[in-house]
Amino acid sequence: MRKNIILLGSTGSIGCNTLDIVKKFPDQFQAVGLTGGSNGDKLKEQIEVFKPRVVALLDHGAAHRLQGECRHLPVEILSGIEGLKAVATLSEGHIVVSAIVGAAGLVPTLSAIRSKKEIALANKETMVMAGELVNKEVREHQTRLLPVDSEHSAIFQSLEGHRKEDLSKLILTASGGPLWDLPKAAQENVTPEEALNHPNWKMGAKISIDSATMMNKGLEMIEARWLFDVIAEKIEILIHRQSVIHSMVEFIDGSVIAQLGIPDMRGPIAYALNYPKRLPLKLPSLDLSKIGNLTFFKPDLERFPCISLAYEAMDSGGTFPTVLNASNEEAVGAFLERKIPFSKISAVIQQTLGAHNPKSGTNLDDILMADQWAREEARRTVKSHICH
Amino acid sequence: MRKNIILLGSTGSIGCNTLDIVKKFPDQFQAVGLTGGSNGDKLKEQIEVFKPRVVALLDHGAAHRLQGECRHLPVEILSGIEGLKAVATLSEGHIVVSAIVGAAGLVPTLSAIRSKKEIALANKETMVMAGELVNKEVREHQTRLLPVDSEHSAIFQSLEGHRKEDLSKLILTASGGPLWDLPKAAQENVTPEEALNHPNWKMGAKISIDSATMMNKGLEMIEARWLFDVIAEKIEILIHRQSVIHSMVEFIDGSVIAQLGIPDMRGPIAYALNYPKRLPLKLPSLDLSKIGNLTFFKPDLERFPCISLAYEAMDSGGTFPTVLNASNEEAVGAFLERKIPFSKISAVIQQTLGAHNPKSGTNLDDILMADQWAREEARRTVKSHICH
Repeated sequence: MRKNIILLGSTGSIGCNTLDIVKKFPDQFQAVGLTGGSNGDKLKEQIEVFKPRVVALLDHGAAHRLQGECRHLPVEILSGIEGLKAVATLSEGHIVVSAIVGAAGLVPTLSAIRSKKEIALANKETMVMAGELVNKEVREHQTRLLPVDSEHSAIFQSLEGHRKEDLSKLILTASGGPLWDLPKAAQENVTPEEALNHPNWKMGAKISIDSATMMNKGLEMIEARWLFDVIAEKIEILIHRQSVIHSMVEFIDGSVIAQLGIPDMRGPIAYALNYPKRLPLKLPSLDLSKIGNLTFFKPDLERFPCISLAYEAMDSGGTFPTVLNASNEEAVGAFLERKIPFSKISAVIQQTLGAHNPKSGTNLDDILMADQWAREEARRTVKSHICH
Repeated sequence: MRKNIILLGSTGSIGCNTLDIVKKFPDQFQAVGLTGGSNGDKLKEQIEVFKPRVVALLDHGAAHRLQGECRHLPVEILSGIEGLKAVATLSEGHIVVSAIVGAAGLVPTLSAIRSKKEIALANKETMVMAGELVNKEVREHQTRLLPVDSEHSAIFQSLEGHRKEDLSKLILTASGGPLWDLPKAAQENVTPEEALNHPNWKMGAKISIDSATMMNKGLEMIEARWLFDVIAEKIEILIHRQSVIHSMVEFIDGSVIAQLGIPDMRGPIAYALNYPKRLPLKLPSLDLSKIGNLTFFKPDLERFPCISLAYEAMDSGGTFPTVLNASNEEAVGAFLERKIPFSKISAVIQQTLGAHNPKSGTNLDDILMADQWAREEARRTVKSHICH
């Protein structure tokens, strides 16, 4: 039987990689629902190739234009957050790939969980903002989350077949991003182009900047905390420039299980889509004798303060991780628009966290309000940075 | 309930490490039977500490002396191969650790399998000589083999929870041994002391020399072929000097699962003893940021001809691997006794393999006869090398 896939965020990087797998294994997968933000042109191409029954764009105007252009095609086109939720809960869908970038992914992903869909989770913000709530909903609706982030897929694969009780540590590897070698003083003058230039992975803009600040690793730490139900002290970050070891798990006997591979997101995506069976992806084999050398360092928390901010937010709990994430999104946006220098991204987040009056992390309204508040607060901070 | 352990080869390196675990976890394990070769002094110490009900020494004279020394102790002391078989099949035993060095381990291990004991297998010769037969007996007697060799334990741990059908390659890592950097010409003058000086593992003499010639990896390849039921083409050897990655498994999606750890045999021994639960061994944590660098090379088949000999023997099948193993044991013995130079070890094996008239690999008599024949043939070859 073919698996019916609902793909939230089909026009992004993970979305396109997911559709590449659907295309390669047409007997096994069918894309029945796609959603995007505002990129109607890309979505139209995807409609023509993959023939989904329903699609949605978050942007009403873009959805309206797409409706005009697709009149001749047998596709239903919805819009807005309600449209995204409708696609996320399509009755024929077996698995929902949650690949919307940023906080916008949370609400449609929760809808999918509530309609008992299995979730292939690429949207880490869902867990960063609402990990405790999401875990509760997943239990209540008797479904499961399969991680798509390469690090979390690696941990998931490394835990498979081993006893959760025997786990002693999760080791998240980090490439260190494009600015790993840069002295702190030079961070001031980093341009968006430099920060976007990731050494190993081809990814979207937001996540590439997160990789340059290493906030990406901070968010992944919080995601791991909830995905694998592990306390903060049991999560460690290890710099590994080659991104060959995607992450590791240490057990109480000192044994470490690791997952390795070439850096290609189709690996973890395919594993989540077809779990527990693997797909013959025909990716190039990992040839360690050709790579020759794998290196490891401790992270430099002084040059990458976002890691410490994430640790603190995770430790403080409640709506702090939501605020961390929201203020980071705003700060990264401001940097990409050249409103603030690279070095001020962490300053904006720190200031926003400092001003936050936290609420519980299990109430969706509290979470969404904290998200809104943090965005406004961060924007105010950005403006004050511009003025001074 | 405590697990009753029968330990074949208790006075050797694996044996002592196994007893160290028994001592550390007295609520979980009890040594009910021990066997050794001729080291009565060591066995007497072990009898006093672990209080086994029955022990045996292969050497009749040593057993007789031990009986005299242990008259006051509540222990039954047997001797010879029949004594070893009696201990291997003790009715109260739950798991048999097969840790006799060399071909001598085969017959007692087979006895243990036939009495439906679970086997923690450290004696690789059992699988090299009689892998096909052993697998058949294990199926017929509805028991199982748990690997203790660090490489095979790593593969076993890496396969846990993953589908055997999705396996594409086993990657056996090899330290390269103490002579990895030595030019071929200099091998002529290697002394036993130099060859015994292994960089990462503390092991017995025979296995240390096998590591220097890299025959150890050849034997492990054949062991892996039978333990994991994988064809020769799917087994690869990768030089990894630091012995941190103990081995790896590649799957059809390009994903590689690896097991890592500090080099300490108590890890794999404890995993086999307590499978599927792990024991809190309190070994030092693997700190990759301290190690810094992991390196990988292809093996040099020209300088290490034993690898190719093992490949050929595995490929030819039948009693060839038995002959490979027996002639290697004789050649290593001759080298340790300074009868032949290091560089002649592979020559003796090659010559013996060349003179062999193979039989089926599933008949124990054929296997034992091939083993005998190969030893005599190898000894003749050693003599001719001495004469010339």
